[in-house]
Amino acid sequence: MIPRRAFLSLVSTAALAALAGGDTAGARGQSGPVVDAARLRRRLEHLSTFGRPVGGTFASGVSRVAYSDADVAARAWFLAEMRAAGLTPRLDAAGNIFARWGGDPSRPPLLFGSHIDSVPSGGNFDGDLGSLSALEVMQACQSAGVTTRRPLEMVVWAHEESTAFGKGTACSRIVAGDLKAGDLDQTWNGMRRADAIARIGGDPARIEQAVRPKGAWHSYLELHIEQGGTLDRARVPIGVVEGIVAINRYDVVVEGFANHAGTTPMGERQDALVAASLVVLAVREIAAGRESRPFDSAQGRQVGTVGRMEVEPNSPNVVPGRVTLSVEFRDLSEATLRELGDAIRTRAATIARDTGTRITLSLASTNPVALADAGVQAAIGRAAERAGLDARRLPSGAGHDAQMIAALCPMGMIFVPSVGGVSHSPRELTAWDDCARGAAVLLGAVLDLDRRDTVG
Amino acid sequence: MIPRRAFLSLVSTAALAALAGGDTAGARGQSGPVVDAARLRRRLEHLSTFGRPVGGTFASGVSRVAYSDADVAARAWFLAEMRAAGLTPRLDAAGNIFARWGGDPSRPPLLFGSHIDSVPSGGNFDGDLGSLSALEVMQACQSAGVTTRRPLEMVVWAHEESTAFGKGTACSRIVAGDLKAGDLDQTWNGMRRADAIARIGGDPARIEQAVRPKGAWHSYLELHIEQGGTLDRARVPIGVVEGIVAINRYDVVVEGFANHAGTTPMGERQDALVAASLVVLAVREIAAGRESRPFDSAQGRQVGTVGRMEVEPNSPNVVPGRVTLSVEFRDLSEATLRELGDAIRTRAATIARDTGTRITLSLASTNPVALADAGVQAAIGRAAERAGLDARRLPSGAGHDAQMIAALCPMGMIFVPSVGGVSHSPRELTAWDDCARGAAVLLGAVLDLDRRDTVG
Repeated sequence: MIPRRAFLSLVSTAALAALAGGDTAGARGQSGPVVDAARLRRRLEHLSTFGRPVGGTFASGVSRVAYSDADVAARAWFLAEMRAAGLTPRLDAAGNIFARWGGDPSRPPLLFGSHIDSVPSGGNFDGDLGSLSALEVMQACQSAGVTTRRPLEMVVWAHEESTAFGKGTACSRIVAGDLKAGDLDQTWNGMRRADAIARIGGDPARIEQAVRPKGAWHSYLELHIEQGGTLDRARVPIGVVEGIVAINRYDVVVEGFANHAGTTPMGERQDALVAASLVVLAVREIAAGRESRPFDSAQGRQVGTVGRMEVEPNSPNVVPGRVTLSVEFRDLSEATLRELGDAIRTRAATIARDTGTRITLSLASTNPVALADAGVQAAIGRAAERAGLDARRLPSGAGHDAQMIAALCPMGMIFVPSVGGVSHSPRELTAWDDCARGAAVLLGAVLDLDRRDTVG
Repeated sequence: MIPRRAFLSLVSTAALAALAGGDTAGARGQSGPVVDAARLRRRLEHLSTFGRPVGGTFASGVSRVAYSDADVAARAWFLAEMRAAGLTPRLDAAGNIFARWGGDPSRPPLLFGSHIDSVPSGGNFDGDLGSLSALEVMQACQSAGVTTRRPLEMVVWAHEESTAFGKGTACSRIVAGDLKAGDLDQTWNGMRRADAIARIGGDPARIEQAVRPKGAWHSYLELHIEQGGTLDRARVPIGVVEGIVAINRYDVVVEGFANHAGTTPMGERQDALVAASLVVLAVREIAAGRESRPFDSAQGRQVGTVGRMEVEPNSPNVVPGRVTLSVEFRDLSEATLRELGDAIRTRAATIARDTGTRITLSLASTNPVALADAGVQAAIGRAAERAGLDARRLPSGAGHDAQMIAALCPMGMIFVPSVGGVSHSPRELTAWDDCARGAAVLLGAVLDLDRRDTVG
């Protein structure tokens, strides 16, 4: 018997019983796998200490950028937790952490997990919740002595956020086979990408061994905080993701002419920051100006962001000579993304002409649209229903590793509410109850999918 | 006899003779002080190696920010050159370098000089020309055995550019008595200002000893490149500065809300970079939109610049939460400056309201208008005329140490052409001939002023 006290306070008794037995009718009162909400919280709190600012608290969030000291330390702690839970973790050549348990080894495993790297000044739930809940599901099944048809496999993807090397979902991308010659020679913060991968225990010389074939897994599940405000506003505890938006990211270089801020008349300036400011406003106008489309269609709702900008020489008394910046657009429609890209190129050409500057845009990275599998969505829906939890279908505006793994097997994602829709910020917050509900639905969906031969 | 070959190629024979003797009628054919153009060039080229980028050439410019290793090394070399020229340099408590020669020690000396620190990626002439020409004037007078009525005193001001501590003309400002409690406790790049001053040989514990009384000098002269395009376009070799514009510099902080770039709808963003971009464009519009006033009045022509901007957290996939930037306005009229400051405050309030951000402007520094003394202007005009060089009166859009010293004695400035008006850039360029012409006019004006009991 697993003590249910911690869990009882989090999910209704009926829901708990349903989850434990896997089906409402037969489960009441029986023992079965349950997630330990208190342990999940304890681990989330412990993980939040890796990358916490000096003198900070849980509320200070984390800077745990991929390959940083904080990331390396957090991964070592995570591996130790896995081992303590009786698992045998292994690293692939890209540095992703896997562990498998039970089931018929001739069948493709059922995969689930997330990541634990963060953006600079990020929050304590993005990635962490899905990774620690995957561990919780493994441990719950082991402890309850559940027999699954397929092996269960958990994963902690390395380098999901796009801070390092300007590239997100980088190591699930390798697993999906998207690796070009020279990719590992890129440098960032004085570090070669191959060396970065070696630093977290990967094997860059054998990187191709990390690539997995289509059908390597039966299906993939990822629990994640929504990072938007839809569930929180609607007070719905579970989101069933319909698909993940495509992302096109551009590197933009604005070249003007650096000159003395006191002696160069306004009319004779080629101010790169004035031109860059016009680009920022154009991105906003282009993204906001397009007609909003309903959220429940595959057309999505586009967003456009300039998140990074560097000014040179960056001195109060010098007219800026050069500015580099990032532009990204996201939408569920790749056709819309192409239109947005065309629009900013046209606007940039006009801005360059008007300001006497030179502006170049180059596509730095692109993430394809990934639709969630209908069968996996249905399994998540059933798990929520059995737990007595309201669920709503919605798209994901954020990129996730699930986007990459969708190329290899049917995938689905479970969202839990983000308070105020805040994410990529120390103020990112998901109620502990909602964390536990999400982990419980992940467990329920895993057990549900295990019983099905095919999905999709 | 001083060999005149180097100089002959630079200034007309008549001009040379005039300069040598100090007066057209009596000077022809006589020996007298002349600047050595070849030596001046050699020293300018040598000075350009301090702060030159690795693998660069003279054309790569310099990054010789005040208190940097490059600045410290350049100052040591300059002191050695002064000693080799027979001078006895001394440092005041602020780190300014002085040397005095000849004249009646009971009379206030005639001061002239400039600075040798630079902006990041600056040029080889800004400050350097005036400092090395001052040394050239001292050496020319010594070598020719000129007897002056007053002591001649050269100066190399420390920390003129506003890169360090966000504050320009910092050490001449101390000499002029503008030092507030706590000023030396400011930190920048991890360095306390007191420690920075100690690093260049100043004595921060006795900083008040650097303050000089009104009347400490008979007058002050500074030779400098124009840094604007007026003289170059008009093909006039000498500028007689009428006054130095006032500068008001503001620190601006824009506080929005950092959030996920994929999940935050356009309408729900509080994007600090969008707000900051609107501030950049407002500064430009406010400065450019005002009616231009003629250059030959004290009303000047205002300029406004955002030269520095920092974005946080500065990641492509995060809506910027906080942006800090500098705003500066310059004009010969302090009333106009106040109007410009009021205008940007009003616009910033509107932008903050429209973008859901908080914008604070604080006046970080202010340089007063400094009008050049009419008598000193006349002396410069006579020196140019005797040298057969065209001269034009013009204001200085750039701040200079002369602006501070104007509070202590009559001052004047000599400008030489900047090719294309380029400055604060590695492409800053003044023809060697124009450098020598400027040094010759400085020498002529020093000797002219020495003969006058009063100026102004």
